[in-house]
Amino acid sequence: MSAPLSGITILDLTHVLAGPYASMTLADLGARVIKVERPGIGDDTRAFPPFKDGESAYFATINHGKESIALDLKDSADRAIFDQLLAQSDVVLENYRPGVMEKLGYGWEDLHKRFPALIYGAVSGFGHTGPEALKPAYDMVVQARGGVMSITGERDREPVRVGASIGDIVAGMFLAQGILAALLHRRDTGLGQKIDIAMLDCQLALLEHAIAITSVTGEPPRPSGARHPSITPFETFHAEDGLFVIAAGNDALFARLCQALQLPLADDPRFATNPARCENARLLKRLIEAVTLGASKAHWIEVLTAAGVPTGPIQNVAEVMQDPQILARNMVVDVLDAEGTPRYTAAGNPIKMSGLSDPTTRRPSPALDGDRATILRWLEGQTE
Amino acid sequence: MSAPLSGITILDLTHVLAGPYASMTLADLGARVIKVERPGIGDDTRAFPPFKDGESAYFATINHGKESIALDLKDSADRAIFDQLLAQSDVVLENYRPGVMEKLGYGWEDLHKRFPALIYGAVSGFGHTGPEALKPAYDMVVQARGGVMSITGERDREPVRVGASIGDIVAGMFLAQGILAALLHRRDTGLGQKIDIAMLDCQLALLEHAIAITSVTGEPPRPSGARHPSITPFETFHAEDGLFVIAAGNDALFARLCQALQLPLADDPRFATNPARCENARLLKRLIEAVTLGASKAHWIEVLTAAGVPTGPIQNVAEVMQDPQILARNMVVDVLDAEGTPRYTAAGNPIKMSGLSDPTTRRPSPALDGDRATILRWLEGQTE
Repeated sequence: MSAPLSGITILDLTHVLAGPYASMTLADLGARVIKVERPGIGDDTRAFPPFKDGESAYFATINHGKESIALDLKDSADRAIFDQLLAQSDVVLENYRPGVMEKLGYGWEDLHKRFPALIYGAVSGFGHTGPEALKPAYDMVVQARGGVMSITGERDREPVRVGASIGDIVAGMFLAQGILAALLHRRDTGLGQKIDIAMLDCQLALLEHAIAITSVTGEPPRPSGARHPSITPFETFHAEDGLFVIAAGNDALFARLCQALQLPLADDPRFATNPARCENARLLKRLIEAVTLGASKAHWIEVLTAAGVPTGPIQNVAEVMQDPQILARNMVVDVLDAEGTPRYTAAGNPIKMSGLSDPTTRRPSPALDGDRATILRWLEGQTE
Repeated sequence: MSAPLSGITILDLTHVLAGPYASMTLADLGARVIKVERPGIGDDTRAFPPFKDGESAYFATINHGKESIALDLKDSADRAIFDQLLAQSDVVLENYRPGVMEKLGYGWEDLHKRFPALIYGAVSGFGHTGPEALKPAYDMVVQARGGVMSITGERDREPVRVGASIGDIVAGMFLAQGILAALLHRRDTGLGQKIDIAMLDCQLALLEHAIAITSVTGEPPRPSGARHPSITPFETFHAEDGLFVIAAGNDALFARLCQALQLPLADDPRFATNPARCENARLLKRLIEAVTLGASKAHWIEVLTAAGVPTGPIQNVAEVMQDPQILARNMVVDVLDAEGTPRYTAAGNPIKMSGLSDPTTRRPSPALDGDRATILRWLEGQTE
């Protein structure tokens, strides 16, 4: 059983999150990833909390199984090594500001001439084209400018940031997709290509529903708290011991919900259709909570699940990491230390493939420049 | 210039969002997508608001350029057509509950025997394995159970839903990645494989930072409103005419910020390092806003951009759709009607590839069963 990307080598100049997330995904699919880091400092996230015995868990949980070599791309000896690495690699990834690679002599045009089969993946805040290509960005900036914050939060209060770094992560995911597509294309043509991912663009790709609404009505949607903006009931409800979720996405599910809660509302004209339920959402919520406040979350989740109504708890991250379904799916894995002992916990690979092994552990993340000797020996072997 | 997936045919049984989003992405990379819909009803989203002249803009903006044939997979004549389609396709996608395809005689095991090269992509709420594989789920359920809601919202208030349907969309993105990886693997082996994507798993894959924190400290993170939980200042600030964002991710950017705002804080021990700034975040916010409240958002965004500090507006979706950088990147495209006139607006393709054309329009979405005659003629041609 060979992995889809076995035999593929990725030379990864990226740091922090979007790029390293992409190369982590590609490593999970079988690629070898060689991180090229700045001497002395390395990836910024080596200094990001949380720490365990002085090591960054943040860095470790995104860079497991990668190799590291520290190179100064302005130093001629290091450039010679980098040139040899380019010649042996299938993909190079970078997340510098547009123009930086060109100044180093490693821009796409130059590299494509020298290594026609090399695939070049770039991820930046605003992309390599357009009037604001050169501006810096972080996750927060693209979440705000890209529209997701404007529809997230409580109605009539200030918008909030999505707690997960979707500005970076979704960009990393599209970069990984682009690399996979370019590898397919290369099989047909022998030629590499450049992939230019902008974090801002990727936020737009999350807005399908909101764009459709704005396009048809002219009115941009507002935040709607814990409610879906156009399906009812599809929100949080109070039980006697806290909040849980009910998502009754159509009339049949609403009828089952009413039966399970012994609420005679399914034929009530105020609630019989989804448009009517949306109009009377506040009243409906009060009627449902008058029932659900009488027992525990666990009780209602059991009752509604038995009735076939989509429902579930709101779990914090500690609870998620012990969720039996998550554990059965091997979605929490151990990152090992050099002795093979579990050291950190990380998210597993969500792409479950019948032809891809799904290990329960990950190899350690690399020390800065920790694989230099191995990589140099490998390069010697390649050029003999 | 051939697209990476040109010549690839995807038989798409999915409806609503996660599956159709995956096939939209693959269509943008050049694949032909044939939607197989239920006779009479079709994809549920054909009935989802918003509507334009009775047609769903929601459906249109996710299914542009796809073909449609209505088939009853329990009817023997329709099954014969479906069998012919399977024989001509590279990929089949489905989002039924686990077991439904098996009952129809189209489970992965059966199909893999009959069509060894066929790739089978499934997306479901909880996946095809584990104790809760059979439970129904919607976006809201996996956002709640998967932990993202627990870190999104204002501190000490109720959690909120992410306004974009990331429960579905991120699952669709991982499905598309899995399909691309399987296509690569098939080039080497000639064999298809099954991809089993769970919406719940995919939420975990968004939690990198939160999992690292929980794993090391034992304490799951809480929502932090519009602030990054461990970088300061990285949040919203009030100007005289409303909120905007400043993301000063390290000490050098903080020093530039202080200089631009003429605030003598860069060497103040309360703010000199990121840990100190995090501890004194409220005080720092008040000191910064004492300055920023004195002028407009546009003023501060201009001043801070000139100083090289990441900053930006919080845009609503109407504003995003007119953002010059977004327009320059062709991230808002027109979906045409049958006469070639723009009818809806949709998100463009965020995967910009040097070898892939980036059209400014999309072909119409299909009428239910609207391509039956063409598809049947094509099948006849293939088997002659």
